[in-house]
Formats: sequence, structure tokens, C-alpha cells
Amino acid sequence: MEDEFAFISSVAPKETLQNRLKVGIGDDAAVYVGKSDSDEVVCVDTMVEGIHFRRDTLTPFQIGRKALAINVSDLAAMGANPAFYLVSLAIPPTWKNEELTELYRGMNELAAELGMDLIGGDTTAANESLVITITAIGTVRRDQALRRSNAKAGDIVFVTGELGASAAGLELLLERTRSGTFSEEEKAVIKKHQEPEGQVQAGRVMAERGCRIALNDISDGLASEAIELAEASEKTMILKEEWLPLIPSHGLPFSYRQRVDFALNGGEDFQLVGTMGREDYEQLKAVGKRSGLSFLEIGYVEEGPAAVYLWTREEKRRLDKAGYNHFRRG
Amino acid sequence: MEDEFAFISSVAPKETLQNRLKVGIGDDAAVYVGKSDSDEVVCVDTMVEGIHFRRDTLTPFQIGRKALAINVSDLAAMGANPAFYLVSLAIPPTWKNEELTELYRGMNELAAELGMDLIGGDTTAANESLVITITAIGTVRRDQALRRSNAKAGDIVFVTGELGASAAGLELLLERTRSGTFSEEEKAVIKKHQEPEGQVQAGRVMAERGCRIALNDISDGLASEAIELAEASEKTMILKEEWLPLIPSHGLPFSYRQRVDFALNGGEDFQLVGTMGREDYEQLKAVGKRSGLSFLEIGYVEEGPAAVYLWTREEKRRLDKAGYNHFRRG
Repeated sequence: MEDEFAFISSVAPKETLQNRLKVGIGDDAAVYVGKSDSDEVVCVDTMVEGIHFRRDTLTPFQIGRKALAINVSDLAAMGANPAFYLVSLAIPPTWKNEELTELYRGMNELAAELGMDLIGGDTTAANESLVITITAIGTVRRDQALRRSNAKAGDIVFVTGELGASAAGLELLLERTRSGTFSEEEKAVIKKHQEPEGQVQAGRVMAERGCRIALNDISDGLASEAIELAEASEKTMILKEEWLPLIPSHGLPFSYRQRVDFALNGGEDFQLVGTMGREDYEQLKAVGKRSGLSFLEIGYVEEGPAAVYLWTREEKRRLDKAGYNHFRRG
Repeated sequence: MEDEFAFISSVAPKETLQNRLKVGIGDDAAVYVGKSDSDEVVCVDTMVEGIHFRRDTLTPFQIGRKALAINVSDLAAMGANPAFYLVSLAIPPTWKNEELTELYRGMNELAAELGMDLIGGDTTAANESLVITITAIGTVRRDQALRRSNAKAGDIVFVTGELGASAAGLELLLERTRSGTFSEEEKAVIKKHQEPEGQVQAGRVMAERGCRIALNDISDGLASEAIELAEASEKTMILKEEWLPLIPSHGLPFSYRQRVDFALNGGEDFQLVGTMGREDYEQLKAVGKRSGLSFLEIGYVEEGPAAVYLWTREEKRRLDKAGYNHFRRG
């Protein structure tokens, strides 16, 4: 890249969306007004070419959009309202300027949907693989951030939607690449993999309830994320296999066992998994219904050592963090 | 890395320094209390192995410390007080866990000196080179952030200390590696390269003055950073070669021309360069003297197109952004 500043200026949106922003791109650091009624929420995530994404499964536009979506999902899991993001790129010689422009266009699209401003970043050369690091910043009303450690015995366990579509989509893409031919049902799961949506609205609705909720986002598969909740809360969680919101069997070449495996160990669904008291849950479900949001019961919390068990028709088996290995799936 | 969370827990300091921190490492995102009397300041920087650092010139400890120092310097250039940082690492198989622990120890050391808390991050695999991205967050009193665009005709141009030591140190390291034999004077410039200090205190003292100051940090060489000030302020800047605070000639194998070149085009000194009115400058100098801080006059600002000129004994020549090419120096 010849002139970093000129490039960033060319890809950055011309108008800002957050009125608390005072200094955006173009100085040593970004500056925004502090808010005394809010808590600031910040997270960072890195995607590496060849490890987290490949150019035969995602377009540059989709890579950019997804890199931001991953961070947005972390903010959603705290119940936060996204506001700003910073993008750091390590760029190998194999990436053309037009592709980088597409990458930023993908980020900008999601950012515009969520009202987020791009406020800074860094671009540098890399030897081999593109490395994208995004820092995302949001706010949540004072003391309303939703922690992982809030689960209590007697809570129900819920998720915000279907699980396993992203892993199913990736499986199809690895088999046929993104230039392959796909049925409508296959296209639907592929889109979930390529253009995931973080559950920002669901997170905010939950934070606004003001009740006790333990929450995590599903970036590495339900099993692994539920275990994180169980560990942070020091509780046992029981999930019911027959309650899991699996992807449909119709039109997709996957067995029941595969669909369960996608839900448990596939990643990047970016749904939320949480626990809360039964009464609060019933109220939340009613609120969600009016806003088109789902909160689906999939299990319950017990006293006991930090662990997650799955009840199937035959057995109760303990889940492990096998999780999501991107392109190194077994 | 087998267990990211266990590793991060093992390298993270056990106590926090900032009392506004509510949620640190271990949830989806960090959370800290908003402040209504302050503005939030945030920046991000990436260092790539083989491009920004090499293991034969810096120890893992020094790489970590320096990666944070780069970001701290950006906060200093806004006059901000550093508070938090997040670390994202893309780790190739060539890095051992002990080396990564050293890297975090280097960051922790500088963070402890500055009262900064490590509040989040991400570790992921990489194919070939270590990529370190640090996001740093600080605060500045409401409306006191120091912008690049504040220069006015009649301002003096100043820097906060000696220029060119880091580039001189790198030159020696590239010649002899860090296991080489060096004189005391050589060791002094090598230390400036390996363990730079950001000018946080100087930045804060300036922000607290509450007067108009244009400010930038010198990460890419004085010429390039002065040009950024000139461009942001749309002014002409004149620097006097004989006023530049060069590294000493004694004990170092560098000619006068080399020392001028290190100051202008060498990078990573992490001093600050700024402009301000003469009267404010005299007061600042007096305040600085009491705190052991230097503010050294090196030139002045004129009306005119955005450009920087250097007056030598023979000529007035326009400077360009040739700047710092790390290991690709001519």
C-alpha cells in the first residue's frame, strides 16, 4: 500500500453516526465524549487468512462484514449497544487494493446497519496471510452489562435461535467452494456462514430487562460456550438434545447426528446462549415475541461442579470443549 | 496454544490498577465506568515479526514492552492518561509458550509503570509471523485532547527530546545483532531502540496547560510527523537543522549527515513534536524544567501550503515522507 492515510480516507464513510464522537480517523487516536450514565464495553478479535477464513469460501466483502460481526456478537453478549470500531490490517502482497476496498465495504455495510463509526486503525505489511483485528466499543446502561457468571440453580438455559447453520454452510463450501452449485436450502445455510448477524437487538432487550441473566455468544459452538457459562458461574448445566433448535433436514445432505454435531461443536452461529429464572424468562419471551425475537429453552441449571451434560434419548453424556477448529475439522 | 484462557490468566496481572474497571479479562468484553468529566481516547497499532521487529534485535520481553509503548505514545500525543489495553496475538508455531510469557511480562512492566490494566484480547494461530495488535484506551479532561490540526502561523515548533537514537541503535543491531559487543555509548542508543519510553508525562503536562497546542508523536521520523502536522493544520513549517537535538557524535560510529538523517527519517523515537505560541511555550518550558521535562525549539510555523522545509547552513530544502522503512532501509 503506497499511502495508508489516503487509502483509509478513501474507504472510511464520510459522515459519522455517533454524536459523541469528537475525533475520528486522522489523528493519533480517536476521542469521544465520556458518558456518566453508561458503562463502556470493549472487545477485540482477530481473524487470520487460512485459519479463520479462506478466499474460496468467503468474498472479500463477506470477510470484512464477518470480521466486524464477530466483535458485534461479543458486544451483544454483554447487552451493549455498538458505537465504534477500529480496524487493524496486516496485508500480504497477495491482496489487491480493490479487494481491500471490498473488505472495508463489507464492514461499512454492517456498521451502517448498527450505527457504528469507524474511528481508527492501522494498516501494515504482512508476509503471507491477511490478519484482521477489530476492536469494537459500545455502551450499556450503568451496571446492566450481562456477565457469564450470573447463572443460578433452577435457571432455564436458552438460546436466541437456530444452531449449526454456519458449520453446515462451511461444510458445503469446503466441498464445492463458493463458485459451486447449491440448492435453495443449501444457499440458506451458506449465507448464515458467509454473512452472520450478531444478536445485538436480543442482547439489548435482555440488558434493558434489568433482571439477572448469564449470557455468552456462540462463536465456538454451543458446547464450548455453555461450558464457559458453567465455569464462570460454577454450576452444572443440563441440555436436552431434543430441544436443540437444529437446522432442518429437508433439502440438506446431513444426518441427524451431523446436525446435532453442528449445533454442539460447529461455530460462528453468533446466537446467544444464556440462563435466567423461569419467571423472568416467560416475560422475556413475551417481550421478544412482540419484537420478532426468539428465546428458546434448551435446558436447565443445577447446583454442582462446573460442567455441561447433554440428555439424549439414550443417555446423559458430559460435553467437552472440542469446539470449532475452522478448517481442521475431524 | 492448548488453552487460551488458561494462558491469558497465567500472564495477566492479578490485581487491577484502574478503579473504574468493572469487568476485565474472562468475559465476552471488558466493561468500565463512563466518566462525564472526561473524553475517552482510543488507538490501535500492529507490529508484524520480520517487518516491525526481529528476534535477533529484540528479546521477547522487549517486543512486548515496545508494542505497548507504541500505543502509549499515541495516547501521549493526544495528552491522554493511559488506562487500559487489549492485546491480540496471532501466534505461529515458531513461538514457544515461555517466549510468549516473556512478551506479556514486557507489556506488564510498562503497564504497571503507567497504571494501565490489561482488560482483554484474543490469541489465535498464525501461519508464519507473530502479529501483535494492541488497543490502548485512555482519558483526557473534557475538551483538552491535543489535535494535530491546531498549528498557527507564528507558532514555534518544538520536540520533547533527542532524535535519532532508536534508528542508530537499530543500525548497530542489524550490523552485530543483540548478542554483539558494544561500547557504552552504543549500548545507550540500542536501549532507546529496544526499550523506548512514550512521553506520557509531557503529553499530560501539555494537555493540562489548556492552551492551543498541535501535537504528534514521532513514530516514523521527524520529517514525516512534522508533515502530518503541516497537512492537518494546512500550514508551512520551517525546521532549523542546527537546532535539531541529534544524538552525540562521541563514541558512536556515525557521521554528522547520518545523525541528521536518523533524526529526520529514522523512526521509533517516540518523542513528541508540536507547535504552540511563543508565550505559552516559554511558560511550558518553565513548568517542564520543574518536572524534568524538555521542550526544545526546532523551528517555526508560517502561513503557506502544507509543507515542511529544513534550513541547513547551505540551503532551504523541502522534506518528504521518506520515513522509516524498518528493515528495508536504503
